[in-house]
Amino acid sequence: MSGLAETISNLRKEVCALHAELTRYELVVWTAGNVSARVPGEELMVIKPSGVSYDELVPDSVVVTDLYGTPADGDWGNPPLSPSSDTAAHAHVYRHMPDVGGVVHTHSMYATAWAARGEPVPCVLTMMADEFGGEIPVGPFALIGDDSIGQGIVETLRGSDSPAVLMRNHGPFTIGKDAKAAVKAAVMCEEVARTVHVSRQLGDPLPIDPEQIASLHARYQNAYGQ
Amino acid sequence: MSGLAETISNLRKEVCALHAELTRYELVVWTAGNVSARVPGEELMVIKPSGVSYDELVPDSVVVTDLYGTPADGDWGNPPLSPSSDTAAHAHVYRHMPDVGGVVHTHSMYATAWAARGEPVPCVLTMMADEFGGEIPVGPFALIGDDSIGQGIVETLRGSDSPAVLMRNHGPFTIGKDAKAAVKAAVMCEEVARTVHVSRQLGDPLPIDPEQIASLHARYQNAYGQ
Amino acid sequence: MSGLAETISNLRKEVCALHAELTRYELVVWTAGNVSARVPGEELMVIKPSGVSYDELVPDSVVVTDLYGTPADGDWGNPPLSPSSDTAAHAHVYRHMPDVGGVVHTHSMYATAWAARGEPVPCVLTMMADEFGGEIPVGPFALIGDDSIGQGIVETLRGSDSPAVLMRNHGPFTIGKDAKAAVKAAVMCEEVARTVHVSRQLGDPLPIDPEQIASLHARYQNAYGQ
Amino acid sequence: MSGLAETISNLRKEVCALHAELTRYELVVWTAGNVSARVPGEELMVIKPSGVSYDELVPDSVVVTDLYGTPADGDWGNPPLSPSSDTAAHAHVYRHMPDVGGVVHTHSMYATAWAARGEPVPCVLTMMADEFGGEIPVGPFALIGDDSIGQGIVETLRGSDSPAVLMRNHGPFTIGKDAKAAVKAAVMCEEVARTVHVSRQLGDPLPIDPEQIASLHARYQNAYGQ
Repeated sequence: MSGLAETISNLRKEVCALHAELTRYELVVWTAGNVSARVPGEELMVIKPSGVSYDELVPDSVVVTDLYGTPADGDWGNPPLSPSSDTAAHAHVYRHMPDVGGVVHTHSMYATAWAARGEPVPCVLTMMADEFGGEIPVGPFALIGDDSIGQGIVETLRGSDSPAVLMRNHGPFTIGKDAKAAVKAAVMCEEVARTVHVSRQLGDPLPIDPEQIASLHARYQNAYGQ
Repeated sequence: MSGLAETISNLRKEVCALHAELTRYELVVWTAGNVSARVPGEELMVIKPSGVSYDELVPDSVVVTDLYGTPADGDWGNPPLSPSSDTAAHAHVYRHMPDVGGVVHTHSMYATAWAARGEPVPCVLTMMADEFGGEIPVGPFALIGDDSIGQGIVETLRGSDSPAVLMRNHGPFTIGKDAKAAVKAAVMCEEVARTVHVSRQLGDPLPIDPEQIASLHARYQNAYGQ
Repeated sequence: MSGLAETISNLRKEVCALHAELTRYELVVWTAGNVSARVPGEELMVIKPSGVSYDELVPDSVVVTDLYGTPADGDWGNPPLSPSSDTAAHAHVYRHMPDVGGVVHTHSMYATAWAARGEPVPCVLTMMADEFGGEIPVGPFALIGDDSIGQGIVETLRGSDSPAVLMRNHGPFTIGKDAKAAVKAAVMCEEVARTVHVSRQLGDPLPIDPEQIASLHARYQNAYGQ
Repeated sequence: MSGLAETISNLRKEVCALHAELTRYELVVWTAGNVSARVPGEELMVIKPSGVSYDELVPDSVVVTDLYGTPADGDWGNPPLSPSSDTAAHAHVYRHMPDVGGVVHTHSMYATAWAARGEPVPCVLTMMADEFGGEIPVGPFALIGDDSIGQGIVETLRGSDSPAVLMRNHGPFTIGKDAKAAVKAAVMCEEVARTVHVSRQLGDPLPIDPEQIASLHARYQNAYGQ
């Protein structure tokens, strides 16, 4: 097995395991959500196959494609499965955002509810300042099937500290330096979308001063964790 | 064992396993929901017994009836159990909609909440366009015990792309080409009923253009999955 | 072992197992809910010990008391544990409602939310007509420590078809012919309290005609199940 | 092993196990919550390491620090891990509230939603009178990184019967005589924040007379449990 085949084998295991986090945090139902990872240093990515249930997903069913979403052959093998119907959007992000190593798409309920109104989630929680550095922005309405969704994601996230975008009437896409970071962003996106929703149901959450948001974000991005 | 007995044995296993999806997605409590499947090419169906808890349900307790809901004897055996109290409604659907191979009934919370107001769920999510091709319609108020519920289901769904109907003050019924498809429709019905509910709590979701709904629906019905 | 000791041993197992239904349906947190059962034909009942967590509850820790809540010795043994702090309320019900064989108390969230407003849950769902035969009524505010809670339960339920009462600012108590029936009433009480709450969040649920409520209730109480 | 090392070993096991209660009651997502315990009679505490997931947390990864949050060496050993980023707040509480033996911090959703509005949870439930003796108060907005959060907690809780404070735009901190009591307070804080939220969604919960609140609180603190 080549070094590349081994790298891909490990990424497939990781991406497969990360899908279990989507079900654990109830971000997805049935087959409606997907995780991908860039193969570092290559024009390749790995992504969930289309329409396969999370229970049946195994590392060998994760599809390897090029950065235009076409399944890519090699000594890593490829299952006889089509990649996720959202592959074009993931691929577009990897082509245009070189620092992104992982992309996640879900229809998580509260984030999708904000997206259906076309309304960004305001930054009124310290944990939101930590993770998102401000509001979670809304991207344009876009039909599936070409580069529209990917373009909307890239255009929206380029001008934002947020690793999450709410695509209008559709749902959240999140990015990260690797697939695990993108999954964490998906989990935290739903958590803050839900908490701010609940807070707003009974009145107006108090704003946080933008300087304090910036201070919290800088500290968290640099000093948190081990 | 005859070929028909074997077909029925497999359907009983499938229907039994699909009830576990209803509890997994929290669409039912106690014994209040049921799945049935048509026996292909026969005037027979299989359905959950009445009042049996999901934990205790086993394939052999699934009841075989004719398409009027009367338990049907044969070399497949039948348990000494009455079929679901909703059997007449399922049977009516099979008699009048020959393409339907599976029917599901639940009282899933958000779908039932729309049903209690007699209000259809508007199509404001791309995943709803994909699965339902438009709004989820409301059927009439109908008492249990004769053909009223079945008639209401059939009349409402015949004029709709939706595989789900919200029976007024009662709850959702869903159909599919087989029992698994009907269960998927029940899961997605609750998911979109809940997401649109949440979105509407804080304002008005943005409409999706009817042409775009039709385009998303056509693509999903033809191109999604493997 | 006497016949009575064996009866009590079986009731302890049943009551212990039924507490697991309270946690499964998320009707209780920490130690805040309890199930009791009348010992048929005796002036005795069995009930959860006070402050014991559901994980640690075993049949032998279930306390046997007389119908005034005093622990009762006998060849069935009794653990060195105080009975639930709600024992007086359960005992009062058994003394004054001879057909009741089981009582359940929880602080389940949606039922308690209606109770905090002192507002009955209106009957706008067919499943609510089936189980409750009308609205779920509200009982008076009552302090713990004497017969006040028990009196409030009995006075409210005597004039109602409902097996559930929402004690004001407190939470639901439910009754049944046995402990399992009272647990089912607790599960269904929360389910309908939640569904009607959700329905009302976006408008007014449609009423059901009282004659139809009576018809649904009569059928369900007589013809449902095996 | 010294007696102190054994005490610390037991506290680490307890604190590790109590984190599982935070996930069980869905008070935390990803790594965003922490439990600490004072080492009785010593100027020491034990606390969760920063950024470690709950699945990976083991007793040996729990960090021992002094009451200023500096990791403290000794024959109990210490992992090569930084303590929680909230350690300064926990340590401040232990220095200024000698009766406190456990501190918990979460971002539990409903409590955090009240905190985002800067609004105390009013005491309208008997279980809230029992546990909190009145409303759950709000503490000031405070940035992480110095003593501000700890000061806000101590100043708010000193004038209150409540073991929980909602730090503005941030989330709840709870205290107790030991770590288990602080975890119980965190669970009950979220439960009542959620129930009162739900009740208020459809109207105004009825107030409870302050004398009755005091009576319920006194009884529960003295007479409940075994």
